[in-house]
Amino acid sequence: MKIGVLLFNQFELLDVFGPLEMLGHVEDISIELVAQEIGPIKSAQGPCAYAQTNLDSASQYDVLLVPGGIGTREMVNDQPTLDWIAKQAEKARYITSVCTGSALLAKSGVLANKQATTNKMAFHWVVSQGPNTNWITKARWVKDGNIYTSSGVSAGTDMALAFIADIWGESKAREIANLAEYEWNDDSTHDCFAQKYGLE
Amino acid sequence: MKIGVLLFNQFELLDVFGPLEMLGHVEDISIELVAQEIGPIKSAQGPCAYAQTNLDSASQYDVLLVPGGIGTREMVNDQPTLDWIAKQAEKARYITSVCTGSALLAKSGVLANKQATTNKMAFHWVVSQGPNTNWITKARWVKDGNIYTSSGVSAGTDMALAFIADIWGESKAREIANLAEYEWNDDSTHDCFAQKYGLE
Repeated sequence: MKIGVLLFNQFELLDVFGPLEMLGHVEDISIELVAQEIGPIKSAQGPCAYAQTNLDSASQYDVLLVPGGIGTREMVNDQPTLDWIAKQAEKARYITSVCTGSALLAKSGVLANKQATTNKMAFHWVVSQGPNTNWITKARWVKDGNIYTSSGVSAGTDMALAFIADIWGESKAREIANLAEYEWNDDSTHDCFAQKYGLE
Repeated sequence: MKIGVLLFNQFELLDVFGPLEMLGHVEDISIELVAQEIGPIKSAQGPCAYAQTNLDSASQYDVLLVPGGIGTREMVNDQPTLDWIAKQAEKARYITSVCTGSALLAKSGVLANKQATTNKMAFHWVVSQGPNTNWITKARWVKDGNIYTSSGVSAGTDMALAFIADIWGESKAREIANLAEYEWNDDSTHDCFAQKYGLE
């Protein structure tokens, strides 16, 4: 199973590498970091990840992972990237986003008439990018068909384990969480941040 | 405050990017990824980070961060890297490691007669690399003077927040945890994995 991870300038580090820590321990997964250009891509926190392929040459992925970060504020107006997401999403088996990555899914049309969630501090901005989506205020992550969207940053790690559990079984998810000494929040409705940010 | 993060082939993704997610939200921190050679460095999970400087040209860092990952099995025998760690540690204000990164600190002589902890699954291997260290079996992280060592993988994120709390105050640490929608385990003695791996 081939996972394509979209990178862009000022992506959020943990949105990408929390899920990839967990997914990378599944034996039959391969991961590609993809961006507009091959090379180092600067995160919102400063350090760079390295995109090994670009949008034009990327193959069709089985799973699409779209992270958030302050860079999404520019990317919601970047038509080539939105078109790429829409095209990948058409044939991907699964579509996933972390944090404000859901704003990019929404602007690409992927979330029309779907349930989804997103970052709690940036909730109202994301909602403004997807007026045809049923945005869930209190959720660690939301699954609607083959689309998984998570709340802010670290919620992506919990969602990735839920995704692993759905496909490879719960024992595989727990094995990986234990390897990473990670106390998995496995309840998608357990979300203490909705209240912290005045959404309930 | 300048943080130097040592990268090497097959480093563990979350060992690096969990702590950097949190540290990267502190205003007066800058982060450098450093490796033997400038360029993309492959993680244990596959994706590459990009080292912007090499060991020879790196400046003196205020904080040293040494991650773990299966690559440490080779790095404990890599004398140039061990020498670099020892030299940086001499003048660094703070020295930190995540997971089996503590094996590299130990082999560099940094942990002699110190208290430390490490990954729970690889505990016995790490202990064999540092016979003069007082290894703590049950701890999410351990602080001994200016040295912070954490347990496996995701424990580094909790340790990074504790480090932020020590230097910039607890409210800064909580503000950043909330930004990242992260439920911080702020108790260094809360470690359910010691028992899982038969260490208590």
